[in-house]
Amino acid sequence: MLDVGRYRDHRTFGIVDWCLRGLGQVVFQNNPLSGLVILGALAFNSLIYASIAVVGVVVSTATAIALKADKGLIRDGLYGFNGALVALALVAFTSEDFRSGAIPSPYLTVYIVFAAAMTSAMFATLGTLLAPYKVAPLTMPFVLVGWLFLFAVLKFTSIDAGPLAKPVSPDQYSYTVEYMLPTWYMGFGNAIGQIFFQDNWIAGYLILIGIAVNSPISAGMALLGAIVAAATAVIFGAPEGAIRDGLFGYNAALTAIALGGFFLVLTWRSFLYTLFGVVLATWLWAAIAIFLTPIGMPVLTSTFVIVTWALLLGQYSFAALVPVPPAEATTAEDNRRRYSLKAS
Amino acid sequence: MLDVGRYRDHRTFGIVDWCLRGLGQVVFQNNPLSGLVILGALAFNSLIYASIAVVGVVVSTATAIALKADKGLIRDGLYGFNGALVALALVAFTSEDFRSGAIPSPYLTVYIVFAAAMTSAMFATLGTLLAPYKVAPLTMPFVLVGWLFLFAVLKFTSIDAGPLAKPVSPDQYSYTVEYMLPTWYMGFGNAIGQIFFQDNWIAGYLILIGIAVNSPISAGMALLGAIVAAATAVIFGAPEGAIRDGLFGYNAALTAIALGGFFLVLTWRSFLYTLFGVVLATWLWAAIAIFLTPIGMPVLTSTFVIVTWALLLGQYSFAALVPVPPAEATTAEDNRRRYSLKAS
Amino acid sequence: MLDVGRYRDHRTFGIVDWCLRGLGQVVFQNNPLSGLVILGALAFNSLIYASIAVVGVVVSTATAIALKADKGLIRDGLYGFNGALVALALVAFTSEDFRSGAIPSPYLTVYIVFAAAMTSAMFATLGTLLAPYKVAPLTMPFVLVGWLFLFAVLKFTSIDAGPLAKPVSPDQYSYTVEYMLPTWYMGFGNAIGQIFFQDNWIAGYLILIGIAVNSPISAGMALLGAIVAAATAVIFGAPEGAIRDGLFGYNAALTAIALGGFFLVLTWRSFLYTLFGVVLATWLWAAIAIFLTPIGMPVLTSTFVIVTWALLLGQYSFAALVPVPPAEATTAEDNRRRYSLKAS
Repeated sequence: MLDVGRYRDHRTFGIVDWCLRGLGQVVFQNNPLSGLVILGALAFNSLIYASIAVVGVVVSTATAIALKADKGLIRDGLYGFNGALVALALVAFTSEDFRSGAIPSPYLTVYIVFAAAMTSAMFATLGTLLAPYKVAPLTMPFVLVGWLFLFAVLKFTSIDAGPLAKPVSPDQYSYTVEYMLPTWYMGFGNAIGQIFFQDNWIAGYLILIGIAVNSPISAGMALLGAIVAAATAVIFGAPEGAIRDGLFGYNAALTAIALGGFFLVLTWRSFLYTLFGVVLATWLWAAIAIFLTPIGMPVLTSTFVIVTWALLLGQYSFAALVPVPPAEATTAEDNRRRYSLKAS
Repeated sequence: MLDVGRYRDHRTFGIVDWCLRGLGQVVFQNNPLSGLVILGALAFNSLIYASIAVVGVVVSTATAIALKADKGLIRDGLYGFNGALVALALVAFTSEDFRSGAIPSPYLTVYIVFAAAMTSAMFATLGTLLAPYKVAPLTMPFVLVGWLFLFAVLKFTSIDAGPLAKPVSPDQYSYTVEYMLPTWYMGFGNAIGQIFFQDNWIAGYLILIGIAVNSPISAGMALLGAIVAAATAVIFGAPEGAIRDGLFGYNAALTAIALGGFFLVLTWRSFLYTLFGVVLATWLWAAIAIFLTPIGMPVLTSTFVIVTWALLLGQYSFAALVPVPPAEATTAEDNRRRYSLKAS
Repeated sequence: MLDVGRYRDHRTFGIVDWCLRGLGQVVFQNNPLSGLVILGALAFNSLIYASIAVVGVVVSTATAIALKADKGLIRDGLYGFNGALVALALVAFTSEDFRSGAIPSPYLTVYIVFAAAMTSAMFATLGTLLAPYKVAPLTMPFVLVGWLFLFAVLKFTSIDAGPLAKPVSPDQYSYTVEYMLPTWYMGFGNAIGQIFFQDNWIAGYLILIGIAVNSPISAGMALLGAIVAAATAVIFGAPEGAIRDGLFGYNAALTAIALGGFFLVLTWRSFLYTLFGVVLATWLWAAIAIFLTPIGMPVLTSTFVIVTWALLLGQYSFAALVPVPPAEATTAEDNRRRYSLKAS
């Protein structure tokens, strides 16, 4: 097997490794190989998106290096993943065809660079605020910076972005289409893809492989999250298009990875707790989507962050859960092994 | 006198005691007898509401037990009161006749169970966040979970809730009705009743008796809060109906209990501070009510929480106040006795 | 040179000194002479505004004294500056001619006194919340109390304030006017003036002198902030009137003072960090202004606070920055001197 750790401390190629880990960290995988497979999945869907993701992760990682942030965090890709996401979001929501994306104008490129740089400052800020509670900033730097810059980009005259091309709320879909087989298999894949703004279900399954390379449990949880979200949405009577596009599922999938083994040791109790969180994330996504529609802002991964924070901040109050502090969380498998050793 | 503490540690009947305390804790009374009188007041108004309150408090307390939360907190009813409130709110705002309530549909019952369970996680989360500042979560778990679930319930098609039946903002009342005697005596009672979503002024006075059973000072403060709120509202020129319905007063009454002896030892200085808080809570209620009208969300007890937090978080900066940490706050009378002992 | 420290501990005249420092603290100048020059600048524009500022600073300082707050903080004017700002805001946004202001009605005067008193409680609250992170509350007490009271004042019938007289968003200006010379020299002065709600560019330059009396670096930063904001706004294609009125610049100027030497030792790295913050504050001002337009609330100095907090909370994560804890921050010059001594 390829020794994936060997380039992490390399003088010259180190940054390549850190940036690939950054792509993997979007889905909690501190592994350059995961990042590489994910980058391949993006390229499979659109070379533009793949390039933009690289720009985002490089800018935010370089900002952290210039500000002399903690080397361990940089090398684990933790200063990179929010930058990648914000870059993808700014292109996705300003492109006429959001599926393939469009090459950003010079103006927009400046915004993207600023936004990616800002996520590094915001990561440090949220990290400081959350440190006493042993909870990670998750993708909140991306969400906050994303909202700010999207609002600026969509409202200011110097960038002719036009209205949001992508539907971002279940209300925008037809309620008369019947559920069918592709609703499901495309919906699950798209839910994973939407984490990276990829409206391509095959790319979604490729990303799932990227996760599985590092942690099969996390991959299973992501898929389970997408499935439970779709099922919950059907019980609501949600529109078929929104389910097929994976809109209900991407926050649920991230919530499932985070709670299902990564920040809580996987046990039957924490599994039930995770299911509870996944259902909540699905409801909350719909509620926030409808709430944000008037100001034209997308939900991004805000519901994942809110639900995960809400269920993790109080984790030490519940003796039935076994929390893993962010600094010690490696993979769901590894967390489980270490904590069962401790217990014995 | 009945020994109200005797069942708190009972193996079998313990949970009955904890749940009754949970009902009492809505108004800061850690006393099963207070809870019983309050439950009686609810039943006097509507058996449906009384049953729903029991469902809420049992579900959230049971969730805390299943998650192995701190036994002391569970036994003091602290994991129960937010569950009771959120269950009452979900029924109150979806019933055609909000005065009597309606038996919830199976769908809505599932929501209520989820919402009540969620308040326990949220209580732990806010408790963790606030612990360094020695300030209690108050009813914020109820407010946050309540907004989320009300939004979901009112916007999703699977639950045919119809528009909010209950007026929730002073704007929705006529400005031409004159103030008269019932404006006052009904208004004060309704203000206490509204804490539990009871639009029944006699039930309100019964709840006041439930408070007085445990703490006459708290009962006096609750009434004073309702009176000051009504007087403030009249100076605004607020509509008669909103005052008579107790809308201006329920947040003010809770603020008065919290600041007036419970979390601050009652002295002349803290009494003035409490009056200041009561006036603020009244203003802020009206401001938030108007602010939330476009999205159709009710204020719930958000203004009570915001004002009480704003006036308590900085309590240790002011040597003129004598703060009582949440873990030591028992009753206004007891706090006063203990602290005057300390001083001597 | 006048010994500006001599009255700080004076029994009788002390409060005059503390209140003048309070006016200076709006722009981070703990110096009664700065406060006096600023008061003169206000009086040059309007005797009403000058008097109102005095009322605000006296009420909030007196509240802190009555609550027995920390004497050091009171004497440094830190309990006064938010009171002055909220008093100015309440008059500015309810006067028919916002340039000169109007003498407040008795009702409004009561509101102003309550609001100014409330800023002292809020200052303690935010100070407590932020203490572990060594970040100051800045003008957030003013912003939060200001929004609450403005909302109440503008929506309640007992005060006939009429609609907001002052334009508060770039959307409200014509997009067809050309930029010209006065756009710049008036715009920079107005940006400084707007910090105190003074739409008078000469008053703005007088305030700049008030800053320079205590700290030339801070004065330079304030001007730089105003200039960079105007330049950024032009690149957006912002309307000429909004730039000339200094609307883009007042948050940027405050951000520049805070980051440029006051809370971070001035170095080339922190200078670039400050420039980044200034551009962000300009964008964010426009975004928040457009966002708040539907509810009719002005931005106040919220963007300055948000950007400064976002860039300072994580300051200890970045070894390239040299943070100065609020309790040790004196002037940009003094911070630089002390820290270069430490380094050697």
